[in-house]
Amino acid sequence: FQVGDSCVSAATPTEEMNGAGNLMDFLDEPFPDVSTYEDFHTIDWLREKSRDTDRHRKITSKSKESLWELIKSLLDAWSGWVVMLLIGLLSGTLAGVIDLAVDWMTDLKEGVCLSAFWYSHEQCCWTSNETTFDDRDKCPQWQKWAELMTGHAEGAGAYVLNYFLYILWALLFSFLAVSLVRVFAPYACGSGIPEIKTILSGFIIRGYLGKWTLLIKTVTLVLAVSSGLSLGKEGPLVHVACCCGNLFCSLFSKYSKNEGKRREVLSAAAAAGVSVAFGAPIGGVLFSLEEVSYYFPLKTLWRSFFAALVAAFTLRSINPFGNSRLVLFYVEYHTPWYMAELVPFILLGVFGGLWGTLFIRANIAWCRRRKTTQLGKYPVLEVIAVTGITALLAYPNPYTRRSTSELISELFNDCGALESSQLCDYVNNPNMSRPVDDIPDRPAGPGVYNALWQLTLALIFKIVITIFTFGMKIPSGLFIPSMAVGAIAGRIVGIAVEQMAYHHHDWIIFKNWCRPGADCVTPGLYAMVGAAACLGGVTRMTVSLVVIMFELTGGLEYIVPLMAAAVTSKWVADAFGKEGIYESHILLNGYPYLDVRDEFTHRTLATDVMRPRRNDPPLAVLTQDSTTVEDVETLIKDTDYNGFPVVVSRESERLIGFVQRRDLTLAIKNARQKQDGVVSSSVVYFTEDAPQLPASNPQPLKLRRILNLSPFTVTDHTPMETVVDIFRKLGLRQCLVTRSGRLLGIITKKDVLRHMAQMMNQDPESIMFN
Amino acid sequence: FQVGDSCVSAATPTEEMNGAGNLMDFLDEPFPDVSTYEDFHTIDWLREKSRDTDRHRKITSKSKESLWELIKSLLDAWSGWVVMLLIGLLSGTLAGVIDLAVDWMTDLKEGVCLSAFWYSHEQCCWTSNETTFDDRDKCPQWQKWAELMTGHAEGAGAYVLNYFLYILWALLFSFLAVSLVRVFAPYACGSGIPEIKTILSGFIIRGYLGKWTLLIKTVTLVLAVSSGLSLGKEGPLVHVACCCGNLFCSLFSKYSKNEGKRREVLSAAAAAGVSVAFGAPIGGVLFSLEEVSYYFPLKTLWRSFFAALVAAFTLRSINPFGNSRLVLFYVEYHTPWYMAELVPFILLGVFGGLWGTLFIRANIAWCRRRKTTQLGKYPVLEVIAVTGITALLAYPNPYTRRSTSELISELFNDCGALESSQLCDYVNNPNMSRPVDDIPDRPAGPGVYNALWQLTLALIFKIVITIFTFGMKIPSGLFIPSMAVGAIAGRIVGIAVEQMAYHHHDWIIFKNWCRPGADCVTPGLYAMVGAAACLGGVTRMTVSLVVIMFELTGGLEYIVPLMAAAVTSKWVADAFGKEGIYESHILLNGYPYLDVRDEFTHRTLATDVMRPRRNDPPLAVLTQDSTTVEDVETLIKDTDYNGFPVVVSRESERLIGFVQRRDLTLAIKNARQKQDGVVSSSVVYFTEDAPQLPASNPQPLKLRRILNLSPFTVTDHTPMETVVDIFRKLGLRQCLVTRSGRLLGIITKKDVLRHMAQMMNQDPESIMFN
Repeated sequence: FQVGDSCVSAATPTEEMNGAGNLMDFLDEPFPDVSTYEDFHTIDWLREKSRDTDRHRKITSKSKESLWELIKSLLDAWSGWVVMLLIGLLSGTLAGVIDLAVDWMTDLKEGVCLSAFWYSHEQCCWTSNETTFDDRDKCPQWQKWAELMTGHAEGAGAYVLNYFLYILWALLFSFLAVSLVRVFAPYACGSGIPEIKTILSGFIIRGYLGKWTLLIKTVTLVLAVSSGLSLGKEGPLVHVACCCGNLFCSLFSKYSKNEGKRREVLSAAAAAGVSVAFGAPIGGVLFSLEEVSYYFPLKTLWRSFFAALVAAFTLRSINPFGNSRLVLFYVEYHTPWYMAELVPFILLGVFGGLWGTLFIRANIAWCRRRKTTQLGKYPVLEVIAVTGITALLAYPNPYTRRSTSELISELFNDCGALESSQLCDYVNNPNMSRPVDDIPDRPAGPGVYNALWQLTLALIFKIVITIFTFGMKIPSGLFIPSMAVGAIAGRIVGIAVEQMAYHHHDWIIFKNWCRPGADCVTPGLYAMVGAAACLGGVTRMTVSLVVIMFELTGGLEYIVPLMAAAVTSKWVADAFGKEGIYESHILLNGYPYLDVRDEFTHRTLATDVMRPRRNDPPLAVLTQDSTTVEDVETLIKDTDYNGFPVVVSRESERLIGFVQRRDLTLAIKNARQKQDGVVSSSVVYFTEDAPQLPASNPQPLKLRRILNLSPFTVTDHTPMETVVDIFRKLGLRQCLVTRSGRLLGIITKKDVLRHMAQMMNQDPESIMFN
Repeated sequence: FQVGDSCVSAATPTEEMNGAGNLMDFLDEPFPDVSTYEDFHTIDWLREKSRDTDRHRKITSKSKESLWELIKSLLDAWSGWVVMLLIGLLSGTLAGVIDLAVDWMTDLKEGVCLSAFWYSHEQCCWTSNETTFDDRDKCPQWQKWAELMTGHAEGAGAYVLNYFLYILWALLFSFLAVSLVRVFAPYACGSGIPEIKTILSGFIIRGYLGKWTLLIKTVTLVLAVSSGLSLGKEGPLVHVACCCGNLFCSLFSKYSKNEGKRREVLSAAAAAGVSVAFGAPIGGVLFSLEEVSYYFPLKTLWRSFFAALVAAFTLRSINPFGNSRLVLFYVEYHTPWYMAELVPFILLGVFGGLWGTLFIRANIAWCRRRKTTQLGKYPVLEVIAVTGITALLAYPNPYTRRSTSELISELFNDCGALESSQLCDYVNNPNMSRPVDDIPDRPAGPGVYNALWQLTLALIFKIVITIFTFGMKIPSGLFIPSMAVGAIAGRIVGIAVEQMAYHHHDWIIFKNWCRPGADCVTPGLYAMVGAAACLGGVTRMTVSLVVIMFELTGGLEYIVPLMAAAVTSKWVADAFGKEGIYESHILLNGYPYLDVRDEFTHRTLATDVMRPRRNDPPLAVLTQDSTTVEDVETLIKDTDYNGFPVVVSRESERLIGFVQRRDLTLAIKNARQKQDGVVSSSVVYFTEDAPQLPASNPQPLKLRRILNLSPFTVTDHTPMETVVDIFRKLGLRQCLVTRSGRLLGIITKKDVLRHMAQMMNQDPESIMFN
């Protein structure tokens, strides 16, 4: 396969044949357990499912024999829930640890806590008894590096020293991150969601969800986020949770030995990942259902929900933000929204859609350049360079200096009475008493105007730098940067509308709902709507996006603005291109992913897609009673097909079954070693009974038990839209094409993908071999 | 088919062939639009889907021709959203109207508002300026019947008169309801969810979602609920919303002419129905996904969410409960729950599971008795009798006299400081100041003990009467009665735990979390957990149940108790029988419903299920070039199959296609009328080119265009679990069975269902013909 630069590139299929040793007694078993697939191959969902049914049947029938077997069968039935519990616990714990570590290390770039160096800035000043937030931030226990080293907290010298150390720490963190990824776990880079989507659709990428990846991804994620790069931890947390899922699968043979069942667990793990990333268990389940999963039976829905809840409550009991909340940006608004505000909300939706389009196009173009030019050969240097530029530009602006999630949190927040940030520097009416909530609209003070300028600069900076950051060889999610872009834009619009409403009460649009002295506009809500719009534009999430945002605010009230923005953003973005960022990266990397959402609307028929094409050599087939062992061995050596159709005879070409290459190889190897008289000239029989041959003839080799007697067939006249539907819904690897019972050809998943790409004028050669 | 007594029984398939007139120019069309299915037949999902793709393709290619066509194509693309908007608006409005009408008519049984007779009790006393809730209830504008008629509000005479009039009104309402259903719309009876599940799985029941059903169901639902019978409006509201969906489908040919697309709309409508029933838009979408729908593509998820939201906000703007909330039983709790409380919660789960099992068994047994005995012949009398008994027993007990949803609302509520109901009659500590929230646990007063007795009696009464009520010939949902049973049980348990914790602070289980003077136990939460458990036991909902309950409380806090109870209840109930009440009614009525959740784990093969069986006459087939028109007509007359396989010749039996009976009939009829020279002895050709015959021979009839060249086939060795999977996932009507290209037999959906029933030892003959 041709993938040059993506995370998934460096695996070598060495272990593929090692399983053969266990299969020596293979021919004695009624159902040979040739379960393992090779790396970068597609699984056969129907086969996995029927293997699981067999297993289940065996356990159920055994359970009637003895008490011990009954207990074993109960344990087996419960194992799904146990796995979910463990996934929830581990991914919740990891998320909590990551949050705490990121908090500490982000602050470490600026200073250190003298009372206990392992405290973050907030924890350090927690016990301080200053009254306002602003004073508390400057508590004496917390010292900036310049103050600690030179004794001067203020002045140009201190500023330059702090600036320099900020960049140095950032470079150190990102260098550590990229080195760890390079050396120990190349699969730990990126957000991981495109690959997880591909894996869940039935592709095998060995080691992508391994223990090593789990460990390195967790560590490097902390480093990458702390380095101040424009990336988030949400996508990688899904990857981490899936690694946890894969880890616990290996505890139970029910899941470890069945790739289909394993994917059920992974779907649930993805839900748990989003659940801890956003503190939104229901949103997590819907994200898994809508965005990530391929095969999502209802049983999995329930278990995913359980895993997501356990994860959320584990995280809450760790309480990384010290506020009993699951997320940093939980908000409560006190005023309703008004119908007229839908106009700016929809405008934010348009902005989100445009940002999504711009980001996807620019990012994909940059990633393609990375793949095809010299750039891809220096990943460490690239990370260092981007970190350096990011730190250099980010430090002077207070809104980019802090961590992105803190920025989002501040932008989402309504200006309460005690708020002392620049964004809340409104001119207060001195005659007015100050209730805690529900402060009426006020004119903006100089701080707000200053903040607006800084936010505009931050917006441009984030937009540009994120394009270059996503896709580097470190763990990087893009939920947080996308949300930051939207939140900044939204807050700016929100303040503009607020000031307009304050200064122009009498305008016809404000007259109806905004009396003087009322709290009409909540700029924080605009920030949230903008964040939803931008996230929607990039990922094309719909229901799950709205539900995640709903779980952040906790009020049904604000669903309509969020939904309006999400719908608009999706429509605008879809008008420029159907694929979201994950699908674009899947296409870029050429993973064999058959999207359930793409409508195939072309008029081609199975006969146009099947192989052999016209002028190709005929299809490699076996006959049921006239092929010798040597013929088979030659065929296996000369071709690299995954399996061969078996026909009655070469003349009639009537199909009787399909035999897997792997099974055939093992069976012949085994027979040659164990079965006396099987030699190269032995005839291979796929019929029910081999004929009685004279003793002089070599012993026949009966292989009916490895023959799949129910291969999937379609006729050559079947429209490709039906074939695509069948491949999607049944999860086939291949399908044979017949006409009035005669075998004409074969269609594999790869052929389908290639054909779809051709129909969409994409490069069909970029699809990985299945 | 054999359905005797269920709602779906009286339809006659008269209009089935009326569509033929439109099809006179049928042979000129490249894709004959023979879309209509006959009543009580199963649709072919694959065919519907490919018809929609054709339609879409046609519109897309036309849209490039002119501006008008472009606008038309845009309108077509938007029609889905328009339909959703309309469904949301209409179902929200209907739900609001139903709520208001039920409110008024329920109170009418007890008295009337003198200032305006169309006011309910609450609305009547709304402007009254009494301070406590209790006094306000007795405002002078509202008069009970006895007071109005005799002038005496108190005393035995007044009580008896009120009692008598209560029964009379109840009998009047229920008589009206059952008569309207009997005379105008027999399909309006029951909850409708089993039938909607069946329809969504691809069955046709003409008129079940018609305008007439919509109108009558809405009216009779108000009457039935107002009559005080133990039934709810939630299930029927889903039916009403689906009728709205069906109504608006007829506005757009995209939906009205395609049974597959129509079902997408109906799925979304079901979500809107639950959304207004519980004020839970997300829960509604999940209910539709989990419980009702069969084919639920992601696009539908997003639109369903939209419809559910519009419906919820329409309902809220009508504001039927006067509290800006969507539901009567919105609650907010002020205290957290403690780990030790999980024990009573799980016990409530067990209770819920047992209640579910008891209810389903008893109700099904009673419904079966109704079907098989004389009882079924007197539906009006049955309703009158049950109403009489209900009213007679309900009036003396204040908890059964009021409407069930008010009862649930009171049971869910936490006892605030201003609460004056009997259930909140605690002994207050006179030294204590009374904060509004967070009142510490107090000893129960005599009112509470009194209430406990009345609640126990109400519990027994509800349990018994609901069994007899559900399934009568009036609209009847069972969400509310189930929740009432659970809420009563839960509240009793809650008060018990609360008093135990108050009187035994020192017990080891209370010591850790319940100090004296603290508010430890919230009995209202127990009521809610009990309601969830009982609802779960009856319907076997999981995620949607928890999410609906979560949307009622609005706090993530209480998800864990709800989930614990829901899981326990489902496990307990599943241990006694896999089917929920809806599946049980589907089985009872013999609808051809192929449940997506049943695992088929038997080892049978396609050859065991296909027809013809051994000793049966051979399969009725056509040959591609040797059957005459007369032969075909005889075959059509002699058999009632939906279609016929076409083979190369009777000797080789190699399959080339499948032809629908309906298409064949129309084509021959048409050819005889229009095509010269087609006579009985004409040969029917299904081949690509008919041979040049001598002029003496009759004109051949070429029918290749009605031949489906890609019939679905499996081999005779295919395991039935795979066949079942294929039928489910692809929504097939039939599937042909071959062995090495030779046609052996056919499997229809009916055969699959019959086989599954046989394997589960159920009566296979009860399944409706497809």
